Amino acid sequence: MPRKITGPEIERLIQLLARLPGLGPRSARRATLQLVKKREQLLVPLTEALARVRDTVKICSCCGNVDTADPCAVCTDPTRDPSVIVVVEDVSDLWALERSGAVSARYHVLGGVLSPLDGVGPDDLSIAGLVDRAADPAVREVILAVNATVDGQTTAHYVTDRLRDLPVKVSRLAHGVPVGGELDYLDEGTLAAAIRARTPF
Amino acid sequence: MPRKITGPEIERLIQLLARLPGLGPRSARRATLQLVKKREQLLVPLTEALARVRDTVKICSCCGNVDTADPCAVCTDPTRDPSVIVVVEDVSDLWALERSGAVSARYHVLGGVLSPLDGVGPDDLSIAGLVDRAADPAVREVILAVNATVDGQTTAHYVTDRLRDLPVKVSRLAHGVPVGGELDYLDEGTLAAAIRARTPF
Repeated sequence: MPRKITGPEIERLIQLLARLPGLGPRSARRATLQLVKKREQLLVPLTEALARVRDTVKICSCCGNVDTADPCAVCTDPTRDPSVIVVVEDVSDLWALERSGAVSARYHVLGGVLSPLDGVGPDDLSIAGLVDRAADPAVREVILAVNATVDGQTTAHYVTDRLRDLPVKVSRLAHGVPVGGELDYLDEGTLAAAIRARTPF
Repeated sequence: MPRKITGPEIERLIQLLARLPGLGPRSARRATLQLVKKREQLLVPLTEALARVRDTVKICSCCGNVDTADPCAVCTDPTRDPSVIVVVEDVSDLWALERSGAVSARYHVLGGVLSPLDGVGPDDLSIAGLVDRAADPAVREVILAVNATVDGQTTAHYVTDRLRDLPVKVSRLAHGVPVGGELDYLDEGTLAAAIRARTPF
């Protein structure tokens, strides 16, 4: 049994921090020491920020975004095009698209992808809610912004199928060479897709 | 100006998490989303653990360790050899040595190393406290377990000098090949030290 070198409160904090993505046991220890050393600048404000998020955070009942208001800031933003819904797997994808500034539309977070191996079926995702929203006559287009993985594409096909009877256009993200990417490092599938979808110069 | 996609409480949490060592802005966002998704399993316990550490953590007035008691669990452990003080730069080094289980002694955390370039002088470190402790007749040896860096070794020399008039033995960690290390990847200084300090097989 290792000897006791610090209090159980500190051990507990290390254990919990180690469960955050990007932190392992070693970096959780370093983070804990940093917190203790920077008590006023870091530990106290972080505790307060976490408590505030704990007390105020909500999942938007319309789109699935994370916010302190329900409906969220995106759903209630009057400057966004209400005729386009961008479907994403996860809130992190919504945030990534917003950072790109590429689209000014509403979103719909599926909350995952279909994955029979992991036991994730259509009822585990927010697909019925999407169909309801897409049935609104104001909606003209649904952009499927799911990951270019096998599960993501399977999910895209399934969602497209569920939307078939509605008078909405269903589109998906283009495949191609990432901006700044080097051909030598790309896989054959991406290169083939980029050639097929080539555009006039 | 980027559009508002989430509440200020969540943005604030992302900013604070990004200041932890090992987390950048991107991983802080991922960590925040994980916290929000795992509200009961992660967000609530982590908030509580941080608040408890904030309310209970102390720096040991004797050795400088971080604990919820003062003197700390190491200083008050009656099973440790009171005649040896292991001098380390930082609490993380104390924890690392304890994990190794290599020594059962008391510690003394200097709180850094002498670094004229960074404006760190002897008075910024806990050196006077170490000299006081080493003057106790019960103390027979001081092990300087500082990092094998230029600043660490400078600090070791300075501390040795301050302890010169006391009847204590001052030792330092051995230099050599790390266990599991490959010679081809080691620097010349380490190899030369390992040859010099070779031991009979």
